[in-house]
Amino acid sequence: MATASQKLLERQRQTQSRLCIGLDPDEHLVPDPLRREREPWKRLLQEVVPATAPYACAYKLNLTFYLAFGATGWRLLEETLSLLPRDIPVILDGKWGDVPHTATVAARITFEQLGVDAVTVNPLLGMDSVTPFLAYSGKLIFVLARTSNVGAKDFLCRPCPTGYLLYEHIVTTALGWSGQAEIGFVVGATAPNDFARVRQLAPQSWLLVPGVGIQGGNAVALVQLNGYAPLIVNVGRAILYASNGTDFAEAAARAAASFARIVRLEPEG
Amino acid sequence: MATASQKLLERQRQTQSRLCIGLDPDEHLVPDPLRREREPWKRLLQEVVPATAPYACAYKLNLTFYLAFGATGWRLLEETLSLLPRDIPVILDGKWGDVPHTATVAARITFEQLGVDAVTVNPLLGMDSVTPFLAYSGKLIFVLARTSNVGAKDFLCRPCPTGYLLYEHIVTTALGWSGQAEIGFVVGATAPNDFARVRQLAPQSWLLVPGVGIQGGNAVALVQLNGYAPLIVNVGRAILYASNGTDFAEAAARAAASFARIVRLEPEG
Repeated sequence: MATASQKLLERQRQTQSRLCIGLDPDEHLVPDPLRREREPWKRLLQEVVPATAPYACAYKLNLTFYLAFGATGWRLLEETLSLLPRDIPVILDGKWGDVPHTATVAARITFEQLGVDAVTVNPLLGMDSVTPFLAYSGKLIFVLARTSNVGAKDFLCRPCPTGYLLYEHIVTTALGWSGQAEIGFVVGATAPNDFARVRQLAPQSWLLVPGVGIQGGNAVALVQLNGYAPLIVNVGRAILYASNGTDFAEAAARAAASFARIVRLEPEG
Repeated sequence: MATASQKLLERQRQTQSRLCIGLDPDEHLVPDPLRREREPWKRLLQEVVPATAPYACAYKLNLTFYLAFGATGWRLLEETLSLLPRDIPVILDGKWGDVPHTATVAARITFEQLGVDAVTVNPLLGMDSVTPFLAYSGKLIFVLARTSNVGAKDFLCRPCPTGYLLYEHIVTTALGWSGQAEIGFVVGATAPNDFARVRQLAPQSWLLVPGVGIQGGNAVALVQLNGYAPLIVNVGRAILYASNGTDFAEAAARAAASFARIVRLEPEG
């Protein structure tokens, strides 16, 4: 069976796109024409997923947003998974970070129950909080390194005595963790210098980059900095909520096509 | 309306107990006599909660364990909340840690949808990842400081250039964050020296201490180190799974009574 990394490479080759589409179903942001539907979010995803799939190398599902729907949220999560074409890798944005006893349960949910290809994890609690995820062969574990928010400066960008900033120390440390799965990193697009630094420290690792689109990160600069190393650029709200009108699916497809061009696998010209 | 802190103080005064009972419903660990029930976990909690309540100053619900039940997990979480006596504060062990956009949703789930009194958060992403929780007046936000696992040594116990270890830096920084809620800290019982250090840095803050019981932390030493500052000691598996036989509820009550005596508010003698 293909690994998550192989699936991603194959999908990127086929679509020439390094665009990951983020699904953050915000109950307050469903397009107006769907508000009277019995299951507005299911309907939205049923239209947006097929419309955007040709431009997607992956989909990223934000667990917290699904949980906001309460008991029906888990069902919506499973329905979303069943809508996604099987050859498109799926990342669960769980940002799990807990002691081994609980991390083992989180890894089981992620890879056995939901059966996704990749996951995001918070490394603060150290190696043994990530080890249970690394036990799953062929999966891809994205360790948070340098996030796209302002608060990244509080701890992640603080120096360590080695001369490294904490995010640099996280990257070099996590590269030494071993398991059956592969390690990648989450690096926000809002700090291009830090992105370049992570790329330098982890030249061959998958980098998952949020912060393009609404958050204002510059995808063009980022793609140039990255070169041909393994890269996934996530865009969420700017695609899923591209229009509040009846054209929401077409608008999502247009937005996806536009971002996919910017983060093309082989830049034009 | 009483704040979470006031509710905790009042409950501790009434029961003389600083014991928090951790509810981690592990689907693999339900007592044998309940295995043939249609809803074994609901039945377990229906018996264990009333049996242990007299010894509890709080209950801590581990979100990940509930999620392992899939779509029915959320319902079990809500059922558990409805079983808990209203005068006993409830901590959601969510270990949320995300960018502000998502943290806002997590805070809404925690305090508006589930309506609990307190929550655990992972501070790695900095102040703006915690601010949405701090906006809820009267709530108690437990910031992870020094966790009970071995991996805490990887990052949390690494020095910063200020001479502080990262967990010390987290404590002093988070004490400066302001909002409508109160900040406390999670400090594992497995590292008594680090517990003492957190108590020194945050003399008046609530400390939530896991790692007693199965994880081997010494509650007696901890209570002595702490003195009379606000303290909650969590015990999970050693109470919830105290017996695998038909006496599971009585055994849970006996275990809870025993731990409650060890972490009494005013030590005997």
